[in-house]
Amino acid sequence: MSYKNFPMVPRVIFGRGSFNQLSEILAPKRSGINAPFIYLVDDVFKGNPWLTSRIPLAYEDRIIFVSTEKEPTTTQVDALVEDIILTTKALPSGILGIGGGSVLDLAKAVSIMLTNEGEAKDYQGWDLVKNPAIYHVGIPTISGTGAEVSRTTVLIGPEKKLGMNSDFTPFDQVILDSELTKDVPTEQWFYTGMDCYIHCVESLTGTYLNTFSETYGNMALELCKEVFLDNNLSQIESQEKLMMASWHGGMSIAYSQVGVAHAMSYALAFLLGVKHGIGNCIVFDHLEEFYPEGVKVFKAMKQKHNIVLPQGICADLTDADFDKMITITLNLEPLWENALGKSWKSIITPQKLKELYQKM
Amino acid sequence: MSYKNFPMVPRVIFGRGSFNQLSEILAPKRSGINAPFIYLVDDVFKGNPWLTSRIPLAYEDRIIFVSTEKEPTTTQVDALVEDIILTTKALPSGILGIGGGSVLDLAKAVSIMLTNEGEAKDYQGWDLVKNPAIYHVGIPTISGTGAEVSRTTVLIGPEKKLGMNSDFTPFDQVILDSELTKDVPTEQWFYTGMDCYIHCVESLTGTYLNTFSETYGNMALELCKEVFLDNNLSQIESQEKLMMASWHGGMSIAYSQVGVAHAMSYALAFLLGVKHGIGNCIVFDHLEEFYPEGVKVFKAMKQKHNIVLPQGICADLTDADFDKMITITLNLEPLWENALGKSWKSIITPQKLKELYQKM
Repeated sequence: MSYKNFPMVPRVIFGRGSFNQLSEILAPKRSGINAPFIYLVDDVFKGNPWLTSRIPLAYEDRIIFVSTEKEPTTTQVDALVEDIILTTKALPSGILGIGGGSVLDLAKAVSIMLTNEGEAKDYQGWDLVKNPAIYHVGIPTISGTGAEVSRTTVLIGPEKKLGMNSDFTPFDQVILDSELTKDVPTEQWFYTGMDCYIHCVESLTGTYLNTFSETYGNMALELCKEVFLDNNLSQIESQEKLMMASWHGGMSIAYSQVGVAHAMSYALAFLLGVKHGIGNCIVFDHLEEFYPEGVKVFKAMKQKHNIVLPQGICADLTDADFDKMITITLNLEPLWENALGKSWKSIITPQKLKELYQKM
Repeated sequence: MSYKNFPMVPRVIFGRGSFNQLSEILAPKRSGINAPFIYLVDDVFKGNPWLTSRIPLAYEDRIIFVSTEKEPTTTQVDALVEDIILTTKALPSGILGIGGGSVLDLAKAVSIMLTNEGEAKDYQGWDLVKNPAIYHVGIPTISGTGAEVSRTTVLIGPEKKLGMNSDFTPFDQVILDSELTKDVPTEQWFYTGMDCYIHCVESLTGTYLNTFSETYGNMALELCKEVFLDNNLSQIESQEKLMMASWHGGMSIAYSQVGVAHAMSYALAFLLGVKHGIGNCIVFDHLEEFYPEGVKVFKAMKQKHNIVLPQGICADLTDADFDKMITITLNLEPLWENALGKSWKSIITPQKLKELYQKM
């Protein structure tokens, strides 16, 4: 038996308003006046001086606004890297991601591709990255994905939705300032928070579970329940607790694995472009059979916040489409093995998957 | 308001038997055949081949057995550093600590002093360390102190008991193998576990508390209750959970502060050489006034495990001794402020402290 030697984020700062310390954090990391800091910022913040005016631009530093309408792709990473190389005089001093899971994953991927040859798609997989990434900083503005602590960066490539999973992927620095999440719209807040809730349920009920993951998962799950079910928190407490839930939840799956909802929603994302948070919710809503207690609580949270999930997203799919989704999801073998054990193939058949997708 | 930018341990491996992966972990860190790995090992493992035969010695690597009868001192650190410098041809590739909090703290301090001039006592304080330490690895063999994640290394110097608190102090690598804790004697298991329990109570009830610390502290406290109060765990589960309690508890105080028990037991350690774990227990047992719920649960745990604390350890002290202890403890201002708020000086007077010490 061999255990993972997990790379943790080596620096973290937590606190309401800690974003204001960005300038002092970056100062010693600047490698020269021609080596800028490049900020990838979720374009919801475009024209929002409350945030953008506090980004400490100097010399050639610049902001690149990123649309997160769609899941991030390997071609998007390649285009960003090419743009950065063509427009900067020296390798950047650092790449900063300010946004949700998509932007954080883009920042991680770009920082890797600036020091590794070829195209982003070549690195989708486990431990394919050869060289250390450029210094990169993650600043979440929405909570739940765990992208701020994870060892992966999930990208849609030409052939698969899969992360660059490597020891060089985790951020060198994370800033956890819950104030940055204050204007997230309710639905997005719910879907992204549920990403955390769902991956904790998957981790805690999985066959890969170990005490390390379990303690982080339990903590994150408790925090999700406090935030989404109980009624005892102030807005600030709720934002801070959800940020910590995301952090601990990310640690939990990093040392174990996700399960059925993630396996099935990956295929929805690949074929239909369904975003990760809402995709997980759409799938998880139909998984009573696998996660009875988890789904019951999920439905209670959904009801409490008047969330109505899209229906019939698979209604117009052809048999070929279903076959493709089924192939994609069944390829995620570790997720199925974690969820259902070594003999998972006898439990989750293509026919069973098709019936599940048809309900969605 | 400025928040701490906390350095986390950048690599952690967790699992029963993960100690066997030490060789593969160290291989890429060897800087030359003349640059040995030096193992500081708690001398309880002397003549215990179950552990020592698995230490992967090569080239000039060697084991130095360390007595932990007493709290580690700055002169002990200086002697170890001198010995290492005189007996190795090149700066070591790494320093490994295999033991409890004392050995882990010694390993951290030695790794710092190998690259920083002067004597260990010069670095007792906050952020006095100038140069990065040598690569250092922490392998706890008893759970509770949190030394495996902390940013400090607590040493008794000529003038004070105080840590080298710096960004260079945390381990570069931690191995969490609960099997290494299997032979800890009951009393030591209890006292060291209570170090975790007590610092979590101090953190969670303190005025410095924040959501980051709170989530780690809650997690650790729950685990302590499972281990020391409930009766539902197998031995292995109990060892694994206590190891995680120590980890999370360390994170909790790292981002907040300890309180009355630690402040008072530091002085007992300095004057009487009382070790940290038992010292905290002796003090905490008399702190109902400050931590009513925490002390109640502590007494229940003590009773459950038939622990009888030493009595009358201050019986023979002179007034001058009391004055010295009182001066030492009152100097730990952040601990008192955390415990009792900004006007702590009106609550905890020298007379009050003397009365408390006289009970012990």
